Order: sequence, then structure tokens, then C-alpha cells
Amino acid sequence: MRILIAPDKFKGSLEAADVCLAVEEGIKLAFPDADTISVPLADGGEGTTRILTTYTHGRFLSVLVNDPLGRKIMAEYGISGDGHTGFIEMASASGLLLLSPEEHNPLLTSTFGTGELIRDALDNGVKRIILGIGGSATTDGGIGMAEALGYRFYDTEGERLEAIGGSMGKIARIDIQNRDERLESLEVVVACDVKNPLYGLSGAAYVYGPQKGANDVVVKQLDEGLLNLSCVASETFGIDVADVPGAGAAGGLGAGALWFLNASLQEGVGIVMEQTGIEDEIKKADLVITGEGKVDEQTLQGKVIKGLADLCMKYKAPLAVVCGTLSISPEESREAGIAYSVSVLKEPTTLEKAQVEAFINVRDATFNLVRLFFFKDQNR
Amino acid sequence: MRILIAPDKFKGSLEAADVCLAVEEGIKLAFPDADTISVPLADGGEGTTRILTTYTHGRFLSVLVNDPLGRKIMAEYGISGDGHTGFIEMASASGLLLLSPEEHNPLLTSTFGTGELIRDALDNGVKRIILGIGGSATTDGGIGMAEALGYRFYDTEGERLEAIGGSMGKIARIDIQNRDERLESLEVVVACDVKNPLYGLSGAAYVYGPQKGANDVVVKQLDEGLLNLSCVASETFGIDVADVPGAGAAGGLGAGALWFLNASLQEGVGIVMEQTGIEDEIKKADLVITGEGKVDEQTLQGKVIKGLADLCMKYKAPLAVVCGTLSISPEESREAGIAYSVSVLKEPTTLEKAQVEAFINVRDATFNLVRLFFFKDQNR
Repeated sequence: MRILIAPDKFKGSLEAADVCLAVEEGIKLAFPDADTISVPLADGGEGTTRILTTYTHGRFLSVLVNDPLGRKIMAEYGISGDGHTGFIEMASASGLLLLSPEEHNPLLTSTFGTGELIRDALDNGVKRIILGIGGSATTDGGIGMAEALGYRFYDTEGERLEAIGGSMGKIARIDIQNRDERLESLEVVVACDVKNPLYGLSGAAYVYGPQKGANDVVVKQLDEGLLNLSCVASETFGIDVADVPGAGAAGGLGAGALWFLNASLQEGVGIVMEQTGIEDEIKKADLVITGEGKVDEQTLQGKVIKGLADLCMKYKAPLAVVCGTLSISPEESREAGIAYSVSVLKEPTTLEKAQVEAFINVRDATFNLVRLFFFKDQNR
Repeated sequence: MRILIAPDKFKGSLEAADVCLAVEEGIKLAFPDADTISVPLADGGEGTTRILTTYTHGRFLSVLVNDPLGRKIMAEYGISGDGHTGFIEMASASGLLLLSPEEHNPLLTSTFGTGELIRDALDNGVKRIILGIGGSATTDGGIGMAEALGYRFYDTEGERLEAIGGSMGKIARIDIQNRDERLESLEVVVACDVKNPLYGLSGAAYVYGPQKGANDVVVKQLDEGLLNLSCVASETFGIDVADVPGAGAAGGLGAGALWFLNASLQEGVGIVMEQTGIEDEIKKADLVITGEGKVDEQTLQGKVIKGLADLCMKYKAPLAVVCGTLSISPEESREAGIAYSVSVLKEPTTLEKAQVEAFINVRDATFNLVRLFFFKDQNR
């Protein structure tokens, strides 16, 4: 009896790793000899690098870098246990949460600190970087990151430009002479769940600029800057990435990663699943148990559980979903390839109480579901 | 694929028959061709005769009888589809709810109306009566019922006594000359879940008298009456039933049924299960689904679900329990032979909202559990 435990977090109550523990306890209560393997999942956003670092038995490093406004801060990233892969979240160096609301200003902010994290990972010998790009404070097309790695940006006068959002419109030439040579052999995968192009009404400035502090005038200036950067970079690198889905992610860092790091963009959940080798585990499992705080229509649109469900369908592995709030219909459940879904609640209660009791409730719901699922095996 | 649906009611939201419908809908959503059989259950109390009458495709009859204080009322009972069995609840003719609180007085009340229902069932040709005795207004040792069937009670002076609670202490002789001859061949089974003896501190008067309106003096008088009746009846019928568990049920109607009807006393749930032939259905079922509004320690002490669980253990049939509030631990669940239990709730909510949504929630929880249970059969 082999059971794969691969849940997302229960927002507000349990981290994915805690859900794994609760599910495992429930399984062991029912079948002490069951063979379980835990793979806490994430969607590429917050918490992903932590999960991947932990999963690969890796280590965490703290580095002194520049924050979005050029002030020194300590930022953290992870390196896999085998030393090959760095797990970096741009938000730890260039995130919006590092600024006070008054400081929000995409004309002045830069992804320089993210570039420093990449440089540090290279110093530590990684050959591959998984880059999470959610929650950025910046709209600089990745030029800040590029500068930290040796790229230089010049205006029409030949003056060197500061690598911040407001400079994009003035770039006339990109100098790649001094770029870090180790980038040649570095593989970069960007975890990217949005599909926006680089510029235009669906682009980085118009869609995400306002939430980073840009007013209408600034949005227009940033959009024109991204367009200009795109033209110059296309010429420099010989590739036009402006319409690649995700080029506009993280203030154009999506496009920047394509130009400056020769990166590929992938859905976050796909990266996590690849990194954890979960497909192999699904093949071997008699039952797969996942979970999320709230399972609803969104869950069925490309997030963790849907990705897992697709793989389970492929291998005809039974997928059971435990959650706090269950908000999908039987029809939706069937269509998504979910064999079983259940809210772990035991009685009419408040959200607060449910969150406090989440661990025990997940454990007990798991106990029940595995007993039912394996009943025939145990009684024949 | 054959599934037996045998739930109790969800108190406050769904009758047992409604639970059956909801479970059946859930099964059909998952497996349209599944073979289902519904047996709504009850514990011998309120609703039992209705369930049994309906289950046997029987009919309901309304009869003009005397209420506990001798006023004419319409009371209902059922006769099985084959005409052989009458399903009578004493409360419909002699129940406490038929009186206003000021009228509660076990010295004056009588089970006469219950006897009239039995007589009417005999007139309709039944050979067997299932008698539910919960909720009585009376403490008359069943002499009212007996009088309606031809028994006569006399005092030491040879004066005929009125068959009410207050007369028990004066009985010196029971005349059986005029008793209904059809009682000879009538089988009576009393659904009785209490274990009280007829008299004494654990008897009918001391334990149940107060809730029927008896003060301390009256309780003592009733207890002495039951003792006297017991002495005279023992002599008359040659059997001493005072210490039979359940003799003190329903104001001594338990004992009265033993003397005057040659009845047997059985646990309500056992009777219901026997009447519905549920043991045979369990043998044939691949899965048994039951349910109750709240599943707790009480559930595991001799009520419906425990009875069903015992039978399921006997035949190694998997028993799944759906409920509103789930208040048993994994250990208790395992010990009781329950393969699976689940609260059907889907989100943090109030009891009121949960009750309104009970039907849909039972349906969806069933959908999920049957899909999980039969997953391997469907995917091999």
C-alpha cells in the first residue's frame, strides 16, 4: 500500500508541510504499515522556493543585496541539496512588500537585488536557477537584474543609465561586453503564471503598474519605456519576445529573463512537479491525497490541484482531495478527474474555529477516506 | 454494484426517507446503473410505525378512540401491505402530548385508547402487532388497554373498578371471562428500549411518574398500585413479570403487555431490522450507507447505527456513515465497525444553514464516497 501525499497549503491555518504531517498521521492511524511519501506542493508563488529547497534537502543562504530603492537588506534564497540548483524568489530582494506605500514608485525601483541573488548563486556554483517572480515592486524590464550581472545601458548621448524603471525609455544601446560569463552555461527557469505580453494595454505597465504606485501618466511613460527597451533588446539579442505570454510578468522581468538570462518561462506548478519528480511518484502510488484550504472553480483552473489531477488522470491514479471549504459540484469534480473530495469539517462552526482544528480534522478525514478506499484489500 | 441505503433521520432537517432519497441521488450521479435499495430506519420511537407501514407498502387507518382522559379523538395506526401486521404507537391514543400540562395526572389517565387501536387492528384481521410504547401519559400498568380488550378489574368488595392509574392499588381480582378471544392467536411484539422493572425505585412510578405530573405522594401511591397489580396479575396469569427488563416501560404497559397480550419485549431497532429484512440486504450489499443528524457516543450505544454496524461486521460488509455533526474519534469508529464516517458539511456554517442544505450536502457527500469506494472496480 503506497500513498502519495501532495497537498497545497491551507491558507490561514496549515502550511503544505503541515498538511502532509496531518495526512500522514491519518494514514498511519488506519494502516500503521502504509508506505507514504510526502511532497508538499506550491504554485510557484510565495513559499515555493522554501518547499523546493526543503524537498531537495538543500540549504538557505542570506545575502546582503540592494532593495528596490537601492538600500542594503538581507535577502534569502535556497540551494538544492546536490548544489546544482538555486531557488530564488525575486520578491525577497525586489518585492513590493519591502517598501512602504509612500515609496511605491516604478520609475525609481529596480530589480538589481534579484540580479545580485543570481550572482551569489553563481558564486556558489549552481548550474541552474528556478526563479519565482511574484510580488515585484518594479517595472524595469529586468534591466536592474541585468546590470547586477554585468550588462550596461546607455542613452543616445552615450551616457550610462541607472538601471531603474524610469530609464527604459532612454536606452539606445545595451553593452554586453562585461556580462557575467557564467551565464553562458546557466539554465534559468522562470516560474510564471501570468500570460501578459510585455507592453500595450495588456502589458506590464497598464495591467500591473497601478498596483505598484503608477498613475496614468507614469503608466504611459513605463509602457513607452518597455516598448523602447524591447526594440533595442530585440536588435541586441536577435529575439523579439514582446508577445511571448508572460513577457510582461513582474514588470517585464519575464522578458528580461528571456533576453538577459536566456531563460525559459514555465507555469509554477509544472516546475514544482518537475523538481519534485512527482510524476514518477504518481505512477507508483495506489492512492494520491492532495488538499487545499478552499477548493473552488479557481482550483480547477491551472493551480496545484488541477495540475496534479491531470497527471493522476494520465496514470489512472485515484486522487482524493481534502479541504476546508469544498465549493465544486460533483460534475466539476468528475470532469477534473478528482475521485473524491471532502471538507474536513465535523460540525457547524466558524472559520476561525475550523482553522484552529484544521490539523486534527485533516488527520481524521484522511483516516476515514483511506479506510474506505482500502476496505476491500483489508477484508478479502 | 449493489448498495443498501439504511439511514436514521437527520433530526431538524431530514426524515429517514428523505435521507434515503438524497443518498440515492448521490449514488446515481456517480453510477447511474447502480442497484440501490432504501430502508429508512428508526429506533422504535417516534416515526417507527410510519416507516414500517410505508416499507411494507401498507395503509394507514384512522380510528375514533378515547384519549388518556376518556375524550374521543382520532388516532392513526398502520397495517402492513399483506394485511398480517398492525403497527401501533401507543402515543397516538394515550400519549402525553395529547394533554395540556394542567391535565397531566397519572392517577386519572388510562391506556384504554391503545386497547381500542389493538381491537380495531384485530377487526381488520391482523395476526401480529408491533406496538411502540414511547411517550405515554399513563401509569396504569396497562389495565386501560386490557379493559378495552375485555378484561375486568374488581376491588375487594367485588365492585368493578375504572381502568385508570389510581385504581391499581384497589384491584383484588382480574376477570378474564370476557377477554377478546382473538388475543389467543395474536402475536404482539413491544418495541421497548428501556430496562426498568415494574415497581420500586427504578420502576415506572419513581422514574417516569414525575414527568407525567405525579408529585411525591402520587408517585408513592402509583408505585404501591403497580406492586398490588403485579401480585394479583401474577396469581391470575401464573407469571411474575415485575423484574423483566422493560416491565416498567410506558407506565407499566410493558408488564401489562406481557400479562394481557402475552407479548414479547424487544429493542426497537431490532424489530425494525427484522421487519425490514435488513440482514438479508446486508448480505447482498457491496456497500451499506447509513446516516444520522449527529453521530456521537450515544450513536454507538444501541441505537440504529450501532445495530446496523454490528450486522455489517458480522457479514464483513463495509459501512459508510454520513452525518451532519461527526463527534466520534477514529478509534471509536474503528471499534464500532464503521468503515467510513463523514460530516457532509462543505464550509464553516451555522447549524441553521447546515440544516437547510442537508439534502444537497448528503447527496454530494455520497457521490464522493461511492466514487472513492468503487474507484478500483471502475478503473481496472
